[in-house]
Amino acid sequence: MASSTKPRQLGRPVSIVGAGMSQFGAFPGKDSRDLFVEAFQDMLDHLDQGMDVQDIECAYVGNYSSDLFEHQGHTAPIIADWLGMTPVPVTRIENACASSSSAMREGIMAIASGLYDIVLVGGMEKMTNLPTEGVTDVAIKNHENGALNPKAQFNVTIQSLADRRVARAQQRGLPVPEYKDEMDFLNDPQANPWIAWPLRLYDCAPITDGAACVLLVASELAHNFTDKPVHVIGTGQASGRPLHDADELTSLSAAKIAASRAYEMADVTPDDIQLAEVHDCFTIAEIVAAEDLGFFSPGEGPRAVDEGRTSLTGDKPINTSGGLKAKGHPVGASGIAQVGEIFHQLRGEAGPRQVANPNLELGLTHNVGGTGGTCVVSILQRG
Amino acid sequence: MASSTKPRQLGRPVSIVGAGMSQFGAFPGKDSRDLFVEAFQDMLDHLDQGMDVQDIECAYVGNYSSDLFEHQGHTAPIIADWLGMTPVPVTRIENACASSSSAMREGIMAIASGLYDIVLVGGMEKMTNLPTEGVTDVAIKNHENGALNPKAQFNVTIQSLADRRVARAQQRGLPVPEYKDEMDFLNDPQANPWIAWPLRLYDCAPITDGAACVLLVASELAHNFTDKPVHVIGTGQASGRPLHDADELTSLSAAKIAASRAYEMADVTPDDIQLAEVHDCFTIAEIVAAEDLGFFSPGEGPRAVDEGRTSLTGDKPINTSGGLKAKGHPVGASGIAQVGEIFHQLRGEAGPRQVANPNLELGLTHNVGGTGGTCVVSILQRG
Repeated sequence: MASSTKPRQLGRPVSIVGAGMSQFGAFPGKDSRDLFVEAFQDMLDHLDQGMDVQDIECAYVGNYSSDLFEHQGHTAPIIADWLGMTPVPVTRIENACASSSSAMREGIMAIASGLYDIVLVGGMEKMTNLPTEGVTDVAIKNHENGALNPKAQFNVTIQSLADRRVARAQQRGLPVPEYKDEMDFLNDPQANPWIAWPLRLYDCAPITDGAACVLLVASELAHNFTDKPVHVIGTGQASGRPLHDADELTSLSAAKIAASRAYEMADVTPDDIQLAEVHDCFTIAEIVAAEDLGFFSPGEGPRAVDEGRTSLTGDKPINTSGGLKAKGHPVGASGIAQVGEIFHQLRGEAGPRQVANPNLELGLTHNVGGTGGTCVVSILQRG
Repeated sequence: MASSTKPRQLGRPVSIVGAGMSQFGAFPGKDSRDLFVEAFQDMLDHLDQGMDVQDIECAYVGNYSSDLFEHQGHTAPIIADWLGMTPVPVTRIENACASSSSAMREGIMAIASGLYDIVLVGGMEKMTNLPTEGVTDVAIKNHENGALNPKAQFNVTIQSLADRRVARAQQRGLPVPEYKDEMDFLNDPQANPWIAWPLRLYDCAPITDGAACVLLVASELAHNFTDKPVHVIGTGQASGRPLHDADELTSLSAAKIAASRAYEMADVTPDDIQLAEVHDCFTIAEIVAAEDLGFFSPGEGPRAVDEGRTSLTGDKPINTSGGLKAKGHPVGASGIAQVGEIFHQLRGEAGPRQVANPNLELGLTHNVGGTGGTCVVSILQRG
């Protein structure tokens, strides 16, 4: 009965045939159900062969805290109602920032169990109605990617932010700062104040409203939806103890274990992964993630970023979407938004941020809840 | 691709081999993780052949609102930590009062998917740290059952409550009420005040702290745990629209659909079910549930209760545990506590509240979230 002896396999293979995402940002006039409907409509509009909403048999909604943010619990059947899907079974999954990737695992298992063929998985968070505030090479890279993502909350480069600051000072007749490059701007404590060392403002993911969803189907049915399915070939999830009990601060044990399970199931190695969306809630978290995933040796992550290896044109592009940092981080939606980005990249439809590699086949998502209490890793393959 | 044509079957059968429950009640000194540990320890103490906690591969935690009640989200990895189960994957499921039965479905599908063999499913709620307040034949019956359940919050009959009230008046030298029977007590507006017509105080389930859990395993492994497994032969879940959009007020569409799916999967009829735990958050809800489940025709539920058909010695015992009404209703724990009661009854180990039928084989649970936004029905069979 030991659990460690097996790379387990799903009883039935599962594929992704559609992905949608709302605009990410701050939307005072929308609540989370509006955002989910927007993501769902975006998915429907881009399904290769369309579908009847009534064919969806089951749904999962990742959401961290509609309870506190919107004073509304039991959100899953509300989403079902707004999508016109009642009475399909629909369940809310809450694992903090890993809520929607945990939801995706439930969708995968629901299909693999034999109970369902067609399952909608999504997530959403409405966050900006609460008061809050909230860099380095990772920030520069992810803002460059975000500038190529029309749905990103920060659809703008760090250089543009610097230029805007200069222009504003000139307009207002204030002393005009001189920035010789982006890093110079990021080192200006006026432009980029300290939050908590070593993190400045632009090291932190923003507070974001947004939703995202994907459509999972039994692989044998994928051809009914698209000629370009993306298969889920690996999934791993692990829990972790609180950060104050962690063995080290530059690695998350849950991430390493979840990754290991996903690699085993997919029968691939970190070197096989061609691009990844990782949980860059803070710039340093992207580097920790890249090392936990085995892309780089411990301590080698920063140099890989410096050398451009994780940029759009590097050998291991990371967070081509702009990541949580620039795309935005609506907690309950982030995991599925990551999956959506890999889906689009593997299908060659990521537009100006498309990774150039013509042999793109394998991508990975890495989504963390809390301070590593939950981590979910998915490995996706072009069909 | 139509979803209506099939009674779907699980890819692998799933059995229950253990069940535990904390004391239900008001516990100012405990929080939800304490309660979950208590339920887990209770389960371990009563496993027929013991087990190594490290053999558990995955866990689900049903919980409605630790966010609001305890100011703590992302509770699943905290539970894993307190049970010594880190790093197993663990996920919180929130579907209001149906949270833990929804969690059980995820556990069932996790095993049926082939990913796991041994899965812990539980739920908990810590509710009494928030200020709140909280009959008929159903109340009398369920309090009689609750009086036989040592873990029930109201481990006392309505008759005892009447006797206590009389004794208190005598002690204090106040006018002594005379109650000729339990119903007379329940009709006393001083003893049993109106909450909202037609519901009085004793028609309403209480506010409760508590936890419950069960151990699910792939049926082929059940013999490693017990000679008396209980098999999950049917599971159904459905969502429902808000009550103000319901077609009728004396039936929940989600309950009828969830039951229909579970009956189809189990290939049984309502008449085959020998006992049930149903969601009696209010006394009238038990009657609505019994009718939605097809035990009695619409409008016939009250007479069935009057005639004693749903009592411990009737032909269709309902809520032998005391139900939510007398056992208590810790929201996120209630669904799994229902499953635990059926587990114990089918194994003939329910003590003084054991149903007498020597051929007890089939039981059912019915768990509702919100005003019918979610309903989950499970059908369990003695192995």
